Amino acid sequence: MMLIGKAAEVTPQQVAEGISIRWLLKADDGAPNFAMRVIEIAPGVVFEPHQHPYEHEIYVLAGSGMLTNPAGDVGELAAGKFVLVPPDEVHGYRNTGDAVLKFICVIPLQS
Amino acid sequence: MMLIGKAAEVTPQQVAEGISIRWLLKADDGAPNFAMRVIEIAPGVVFEPHQHPYEHEIYVLAGSGMLTNPAGDVGELAAGKFVLVPPDEVHGYRNTGDAVLKFICVIPLQS
Repeated sequence: MMLIGKAAEVTPQQVAEGISIRWLLKADDGAPNFAMRVIEIAPGVVFEPHQHPYEHEIYVLAGSGMLTNPAGDVGELAAGKFVLVPPDEVHGYRNTGDAVLKFICVIPLQS
Repeated sequence: MMLIGKAAEVTPQQVAEGISIRWLLKADDGAPNFAMRVIEIAPGVVFEPHQHPYEHEIYVLAGSGMLTNPAGDVGELAAGKFVLVPPDEVHGYRNTGDAVLKFICVIPLQS
């Protein structure tokens, strides 16, 4: 059975001040291998560098920001940019604009 | 090493008349588990129902269309809608608008 939904109708969970996540598709929706989420970072907010043993595949939907690592800035984020964060890679984000930085972030389910 | 790119700079591959695919992230980019693609369907074009043994996780970026199966219309596609197409489920798409119907489509790498 196909599942169809609207991201705006999925309740966002706040994970830190100015940072929220919407789980669009996850294991209990019947997703077999990976989960699709939307992450939103408010203007001026910094998501500090961190790491985990699973990858991210990211597609930026709106806003502008910077992808970071402990050494500094890695690359600009804007609508239509995509990112692969490999497993165990230290990564962070910074919203550098006046609007919400919003991106799709897909992770494996076994994470 | 993080990989960052711009979807518009990835060369689209035409898969049928009015249907193209851009492979943003795939195995040879170092993606461990799944591939991220952008599919574009021109106005008026029908992507006939078909099936395969792997799932799709879809997020619609732009345009308007219809998700279909052999019985008919399943649900409307518009920016911000998401879809899970389970493995082996017969599914198709139809662009019902005046603009390109454009969506992210993530698939497992073992497919």
